[in-house]
Amino acid sequence: MWNSPKVGVLGGGQLGRMLVESANRLNIQVNVLDADNAPAKQISAHDGHVTGSFKEHEAVRKLAKTCDVVTAEIEHVDTYALEEISSEVKVEPSWQAIRTIQNKFNQKEHLRKYGIPMAEHRELLENTPAELAKIGEQLGYPLMLKSKTMAYDGRGNFRVNSKDDIPEALEALKDRPLYAEKWAYFKMELAVMVVKTKDAVLSYPTVETVQEDSICKLVYAPARNVSDAINQKAQELARKAVAAFDGKGAFGVEMFLLEDDSVMLCEIASRIHNSGHYTIEGCALSHLEIRQPSIMLNIIGGAAPDTHLKAAEAALSIPNASIHLYSKGAAKPGRKMGHVTVTAPTMHEAEKYIQPLIDVVDEIRSKRSDIKTQPAKSGPSKPTPTVAVMMGSDSDLKTLVPGLKLLRDYFGIEPAVDITSAHRTPTFMAEYSASAAARGIKVIIAAAGGAAHLPGMAAAHTVLPVIGVPVKGSSLDGVDSLYSIVQMPRGVPVATVGINNSINAALLAARILGASDPAIQRKVEAYAEQARYENMELKGTKMQELGWEKYFEQM
Amino acid sequence: MWNSPKVGVLGGGQLGRMLVESANRLNIQVNVLDADNAPAKQISAHDGHVTGSFKEHEAVRKLAKTCDVVTAEIEHVDTYALEEISSEVKVEPSWQAIRTIQNKFNQKEHLRKYGIPMAEHRELLENTPAELAKIGEQLGYPLMLKSKTMAYDGRGNFRVNSKDDIPEALEALKDRPLYAEKWAYFKMELAVMVVKTKDAVLSYPTVETVQEDSICKLVYAPARNVSDAINQKAQELARKAVAAFDGKGAFGVEMFLLEDDSVMLCEIASRIHNSGHYTIEGCALSHLEIRQPSIMLNIIGGAAPDTHLKAAEAALSIPNASIHLYSKGAAKPGRKMGHVTVTAPTMHEAEKYIQPLIDVVDEIRSKRSDIKTQPAKSGPSKPTPTVAVMMGSDSDLKTLVPGLKLLRDYFGIEPAVDITSAHRTPTFMAEYSASAAARGIKVIIAAAGGAAHLPGMAAAHTVLPVIGVPVKGSSLDGVDSLYSIVQMPRGVPVATVGINNSINAALLAARILGASDPAIQRKVEAYAEQARYENMELKGTKMQELGWEKYFEQM
Repeated sequence: MWNSPKVGVLGGGQLGRMLVESANRLNIQVNVLDADNAPAKQISAHDGHVTGSFKEHEAVRKLAKTCDVVTAEIEHVDTYALEEISSEVKVEPSWQAIRTIQNKFNQKEHLRKYGIPMAEHRELLENTPAELAKIGEQLGYPLMLKSKTMAYDGRGNFRVNSKDDIPEALEALKDRPLYAEKWAYFKMELAVMVVKTKDAVLSYPTVETVQEDSICKLVYAPARNVSDAINQKAQELARKAVAAFDGKGAFGVEMFLLEDDSVMLCEIASRIHNSGHYTIEGCALSHLEIRQPSIMLNIIGGAAPDTHLKAAEAALSIPNASIHLYSKGAAKPGRKMGHVTVTAPTMHEAEKYIQPLIDVVDEIRSKRSDIKTQPAKSGPSKPTPTVAVMMGSDSDLKTLVPGLKLLRDYFGIEPAVDITSAHRTPTFMAEYSASAAARGIKVIIAAAGGAAHLPGMAAAHTVLPVIGVPVKGSSLDGVDSLYSIVQMPRGVPVATVGINNSINAALLAARILGASDPAIQRKVEAYAEQARYENMELKGTKMQELGWEKYFEQM
Repeated sequence: MWNSPKVGVLGGGQLGRMLVESANRLNIQVNVLDADNAPAKQISAHDGHVTGSFKEHEAVRKLAKTCDVVTAEIEHVDTYALEEISSEVKVEPSWQAIRTIQNKFNQKEHLRKYGIPMAEHRELLENTPAELAKIGEQLGYPLMLKSKTMAYDGRGNFRVNSKDDIPEALEALKDRPLYAEKWAYFKMELAVMVVKTKDAVLSYPTVETVQEDSICKLVYAPARNVSDAINQKAQELARKAVAAFDGKGAFGVEMFLLEDDSVMLCEIASRIHNSGHYTIEGCALSHLEIRQPSIMLNIIGGAAPDTHLKAAEAALSIPNASIHLYSKGAAKPGRKMGHVTVTAPTMHEAEKYIQPLIDVVDEIRSKRSDIKTQPAKSGPSKPTPTVAVMMGSDSDLKTLVPGLKLLRDYFGIEPAVDITSAHRTPTFMAEYSASAAARGIKVIIAAAGGAAHLPGMAAAHTVLPVIGVPVKGSSLDGVDSLYSIVQMPRGVPVATVGINNSINAALLAARILGASDPAIQRKVEAYAEQARYENMELKGTKMQELGWEKYFEQM
């Protein structure tokens, strides 16, 4: 920024525009090669831009003369021009990387050598029905017929459901170099942004993408309902894939999460990527962590040239929404015109905030004459239980029911409920307790009677607060249970409530969660207010009206 | 954004640039009136800009012809030109508002009519020593001599410590219209961004500003160490002040917090403001709440034209830092060249992150030949206690000491410790408990013996989790205390630990805080690991080595 190296960018669409936005803040001059008034040029006023196409040899050469380093916001550029200029200016990522990546078949052949898991695929040596039928027998149906080059946002892909589809598929993709891919039965699509520097390959967290009409609709950051192990595995795969290419830069890596929780590469982009837009609000420049859960929603061109602007207008009243319009002028149906990112303290809140906007976007889509299908639905995040309720035996359940109902029905907290005996299933009990925090549990409630070891043993295996409910047994009036639970040795605390008092255990759990969750704390407040009202306004008033004697008769 | 009203802005400095940055994302064309290549023009490429000054009548008229609404990023504009054009285009805020605000004396005379509290002040009818001496006798010394117009970033202000300073003060501000202000003994400077729309006056939260060399150095959002009452009071004052002016727009309101916790207006700006830069990262477009605690640090020109860039370079390695450089070219010492905003889940973390950058900025400042003073220090945020420890009587203290030491020395949690008896100070106990959550307390530990009512009564007055420690009295072995604490009625839970077991109370508090604070949870883990090590590796190994009999002899 001080020695002001000038950056040349092939392409000035929305990705280039977002790049320029960041560069502007760092006072880095970006020279854009694209048509006049391309989105990226509009926010970068200087005379270093070049008019032309990133596919034109001469235009790329001209750009190179204006800058110190050249990069691209799109793969489909003239890499032979890049190869030539690489002796004059730095090209990042390398022209070799871009050339390999822009041909999806070559990209995958290259990555296979590096042991990157991906769907099985075959090259079509000639675009004939016989050739494709042969491959169909090898890979099975359905299969995906793909153009090797110039394929993006679903263009250049054709799903072949059976042998009967072959003529139509070859007609749809005629005159293009083709390959076929075995169908990937995935349960979720994941993506990771990777940054390759001089000495390191760094990754952002794993996000979840939802596609509609073969283009990105939604990005959830971080991915919902996936374990940390999958998150890490996807990042590792993404880093490994990017490490297979030369040069510095940002790479978008798209992956499939399969039914068996394995992760497989879908494809890689040698540039910033739609799945990384969330980082503008969700992350900081120097920190590859998500500051707050974020959801990105693309704004897609509707039936009329300005229909999509209704979505932008609606976003103005969405809490925590940041709007990005790309200034592409009049929209064509299905074209990416902008995006909105919503951040919130929890993914659940972000989902709640953005839902009305998804409805608007779905409504706009439904009015398009080219659309026949239902909108892509992305279910809500599974609420991870924050309270685990354990009982030593099912005979303790009836004692727990009032507390369970209070948690679920009044506080809206759905606890995980399990039978785990300290004496009969000691190993399971230990594992269950030890892994509770990692599963997202914040409080454990444990009920036990007699020689009531469960709460104390659970506390010995976890770092979470454990609430103990002494259950009254057939003898000793529950005093045995109470003493067993409350008189823990120094070092291992159990938060003991009264004998059989699961209501208080539930309320204590709510108070503990409420200490860091204002919404729950407000419900604790409301509960106390309701108790006050019932005691004072209802019962108290009634006693004043009836007098104590009549009141007692009616009790 | 769809009907594309064009916005004209008088002034294209960093404030105009930030305005354009936001407008770009909404595809709103902004026509800037300023010199060619002004910072705001650099990120807005179109032919609607006007070359000239916001003080030139003709230039303002020319700008008006290019747009639908005119605003200003600075007060010191030609308001007579604005008055003229207001019949042709909208002017927001009104030219009357800008004219009144740009003259600080008139601004304050106007606001006084609306009951806005401010320092007492007097107009100098003539700039003579006799006039100022007369005012000095009325207001007392020190007083602040101020230029009514063209005053910003400390320019146009002169501190008059005594009658002897009068000649020097009048010389420093000669040929300017002057007024004098009674010295405000403030303990903190606060600021609030206010947005005035057609029907509402809305405010962002109260922030804390730290000035150095009479210009803004740091902004803490939200203000640290101030109560919610003060936060609300400052916002109310700011909204009331802005409501006194006509027209729509963003206003920056600067205030003093006095020793008695009253709030007084310092001054108002009819535009976006340095104290609002934090909102770029800290807030969302449609939500006037702070998403995460934020600290903004200005980057000020140093001794050489590029010295300040060291600060930007250093910011690259600060976690969660967003860098904004204004592209003003070579820096003059003391000129605002950029800013950095750091956000974090807690203010304490944000302070930790940004400290190395403050050190760099202070180092750059120390090399300036025009600087003789020490850098402005802004103490750290006072850690708000998160644990309150209550005891019914000081006789319970010895029981609590092991737990208090564990909290403070091992967990680094400094609790608030108080004597509050349920029986002897019932009202104080009730108020103390009821206000605990609002004071930032997350867990209460209460110890009591005998008819041990304190934990239960505290629980009845708060929504927080209350941990009860039964203290063993002179009779009944503590069973009386235990039963009094644990056997609470349904509806009011107390988390009871073993008799006299303050260690477990402290650990339980740590586990509760740790449920939502990973750093504390890691310490709970380490504590358990240490206990395991001591038991197994130290004592266990020793017993293996010595045999049980020798071991027993040595105990």
